[in-house]
Amino acid sequence: MNIPAPTIARLCQLFQLLKRFEREGISRISSTGLGVEMGVGAHNVRKDINYLGEVGEGSAGYDVIKLKQRIAGSLDLAQRKKICIVGLGNLGAALLEHHTGAGIYEVAAGFDASINRLETIQTAVPVFPAYDITDVVKNRNIELALIAVPAQATQEAADRLIAGGIRGIINFAQIVIKPSRPGVIVRNVDLDSELLVVSAMLADREGRRSEVGSQQYK
Amino acid sequence: MNIPAPTIARLCQLFQLLKRFEREGISRISSTGLGVEMGVGAHNVRKDINYLGEVGEGSAGYDVIKLKQRIAGSLDLAQRKKICIVGLGNLGAALLEHHTGAGIYEVAAGFDASINRLETIQTAVPVFPAYDITDVVKNRNIELALIAVPAQATQEAADRLIAGGIRGIINFAQIVIKPSRPGVIVRNVDLDSELLVVSAMLADREGRRSEVGSQQYK
Repeated sequence: MNIPAPTIARLCQLFQLLKRFEREGISRISSTGLGVEMGVGAHNVRKDINYLGEVGEGSAGYDVIKLKQRIAGSLDLAQRKKICIVGLGNLGAALLEHHTGAGIYEVAAGFDASINRLETIQTAVPVFPAYDITDVVKNRNIELALIAVPAQATQEAADRLIAGGIRGIINFAQIVIKPSRPGVIVRNVDLDSELLVVSAMLADREGRRSEVGSQQYK
Repeated sequence: MNIPAPTIARLCQLFQLLKRFEREGISRISSTGLGVEMGVGAHNVRKDINYLGEVGEGSAGYDVIKLKQRIAGSLDLAQRKKICIVGLGNLGAALLEHHTGAGIYEVAAGFDASINRLETIQTAVPVFPAYDITDVVKNRNIELALIAVPAQATQEAADRLIAGGIRGIINFAQIVIKPSRPGVIVRNVDLDSELLVVSAMLADREGRRSEVGSQQYK
């Protein structure tokens, strides 16, 4: 398959949305309804779903559970996957907590450069010094990694992970990672982005705008 | 103005992208180039930008700095805004760290229900017990809030914030907040979403799919 990245991102969003509908007891939803929830047109929703092959939208809409299972099957989202977390400061520890318990991700290892931190952190996840990243990732067949280290340590962490066989990285540092091997997927998480959207929505709603900025485009 | 929420979200994404281009020394970019970066068509990019009024795309594309300033002006993104963080566990502490220093957000207060945690946390930001949320938010004119408390404490935190005058909330708990007053904007951050996208992209690239799931849609 060769589904474009933005379509994959929207299908994942749709998958999360369908899980919510399932919890809320909603059994069918139309492409129009899905479009409203996702902020795109019904046509785009149908186009994205069509990448999954024949998926009919009945007169009462899509079957929520079946569509969810179809996305999970096509994008391998039902399989439990091993992940690791590099950097066990506040953010890394928060990610450890978040992923502990049942879920489709199993945190198989945590890493930190500080031995002191490794000795004091309270977690059921096995933790290792950063110089062991490559070996541990290789021996435990870990697939994905979350990087939550200071910006200047990010590239080295990525290099060690990729040397161990990691193919997918989620990076929380505000720095661009250059993968040392082709085929590795890196996605950046920007903790500011939602804050920016909320500020902008409030400004728009309340008709606030800074006149200097708005006149500067000539 | 009445810009649709998804357009505002894309304009914010565009704003972040233009900041990156500015850092990288890129001075002009076409709507086609922006579309590739953002995963949408050039037409959509132009349509979103048109909400900002007359913004011409020259033959060499948009002027990066001017377009960035135009978005900032129209959506009031250049103004420094006061935010607060509720819940100072690992995630809240990470958010405190992330927002310390120069930026368009000033963390004006942190809150936690645990007095012990308030006494031991190391930060230059003034911190207060959770029962003071309403008064502190009111007295310090705080506009936006990040909530990083356990799911069961989320709604109460939101109620106290809104009583103090908060109009925008970013929620990190996996629970839906019902705002106690109309006009309050709530956005949820899903820490799993990027992990899901990376897994899905790898599965798609490598042709992996779980056959059970893919046959289940009839």
